[in-house]
Amino acid sequence: MAGKDDLKLLGVLLSPFAVRVSMALSLKGVSYEYVEEDLSNKSELLLKTNPVHKKVPVLIHNGKPISESLIIVQYVDEQFVGHSILPADPYERSIARFWAAYFDDKVFPEFYGMVKAKTVDEREKKMTETFAAIGQLEEAFAKFYEGKAFFGGDSIGYLDIVFGSCLFWFEGVRRVYEVEIISSTKTPLLAAWAQRFGETEVAKKVMPDADKVVEYLHNLHGTATK
Amino acid sequence: MAGKDDLKLLGVLLSPFAVRVSMALSLKGVSYEYVEEDLSNKSELLLKTNPVHKKVPVLIHNGKPISESLIIVQYVDEQFVGHSILPADPYERSIARFWAAYFDDKVFPEFYGMVKAKTVDEREKKMTETFAAIGQLEEAFAKFYEGKAFFGGDSIGYLDIVFGSCLFWFEGVRRVYEVEIISSTKTPLLAAWAQRFGETEVAKKVMPDADKVVEYLHNLHGTATK
Repeated sequence: MAGKDDLKLLGVLLSPFAVRVSMALSLKGVSYEYVEEDLSNKSELLLKTNPVHKKVPVLIHNGKPISESLIIVQYVDEQFVGHSILPADPYERSIARFWAAYFDDKVFPEFYGMVKAKTVDEREKKMTETFAAIGQLEEAFAKFYEGKAFFGGDSIGYLDIVFGSCLFWFEGVRRVYEVEIISSTKTPLLAAWAQRFGETEVAKKVMPDADKVVEYLHNLHGTATK
Repeated sequence: MAGKDDLKLLGVLLSPFAVRVSMALSLKGVSYEYVEEDLSNKSELLLKTNPVHKKVPVLIHNGKPISESLIIVQYVDEQFVGHSILPADPYERSIARFWAAYFDDKVFPEFYGMVKAKTVDEREKKMTETFAAIGQLEEAFAKFYEGKAFFGGDSIGYLDIVFGSCLFWFEGVRRVYEVEIISSTKTPLLAAWAQRFGETEVAKKVMPDADKVVEYLHNLHGTATK
């Protein structure tokens, strides 16, 4: 299939969900065209290819659009040969899917609620909830993945992509709010994992710079916000 | 693998999410033990096997628990031979997964909000939103599945299970509130599909009686509520 695939990814620089797709495509060694969207003025292409949610990321493969990052990553894994993203074993797949859904339904919304919080009280409340949600992930790592370098085993897999795509956001938040979402004291397994993840080729190649998050947060809250 | 599988399903009679798992297992021709949970007094087994969400359904396969209905249905499809539930083609799989997520994230919450509504105003608001969400599904059927008997093609597949598992709820709501969630006037494709779905062997075998929903609704709102 290589050579005749036309792949276009509609994304936004700071979207961890778009970063997931970039990571999956990079792991597969597939080249693609990246198109930066302006969410305040969405392109006709975005509106046409994701008419239901009108959100990034959208992957357009030979003219066919796929949306929702978890679905796109699975599509990329099923469509292209090379590095396996999801585990081969059905039970392990179900565990990876469970925690991926958990991350998107619980961890990220709390974290993003913290980012968007307008008051210190609200931020602290969301921070507590983020820590509780991340704590469950730490336990999951201990239960299902202890002794492994990555959720995917010796190399990066589905859950690494899902979770790892947000690390640049955690780093940006650490610099602005001085809050460690993942820390060697509270979540040592995840902290060691994040360190390893950041050193992988795909993370170095695809992960946006945390400076961009810092800049975004300063614009969002004004420079008076620490 | 047949013969040595120990399968236990923790469910609740009225849970469409548990019905999905029963449908998937029935399609595969796999026998299992069904355990009715009391959600007001959750069993130790439920709390132990789904400690994160503490919700049904949970499928326990040879001692290993899997939760979240969409994940369980995919697990059943990947683990057991026989009737294929997800489409073989990666793009078709992505479309099925997209609309399954849409159903769970948009359609069902609006519908259930309508069911739980405490005032007529609130119910009508949620009803409008349910109709809008179902309207998108009707369009999806026209766009991706027109001319097919089922979302799965000639036979029941993933999206049929996801969506079809709620039809007994729609019927119960129709009887109590005289509201047709799916109707031959507003959603003719889905209405014809629902008719076909209801006539399948698996629906006849697994789908709970809508009378149970009627009873539940009368208990929920009191007999004064129409």
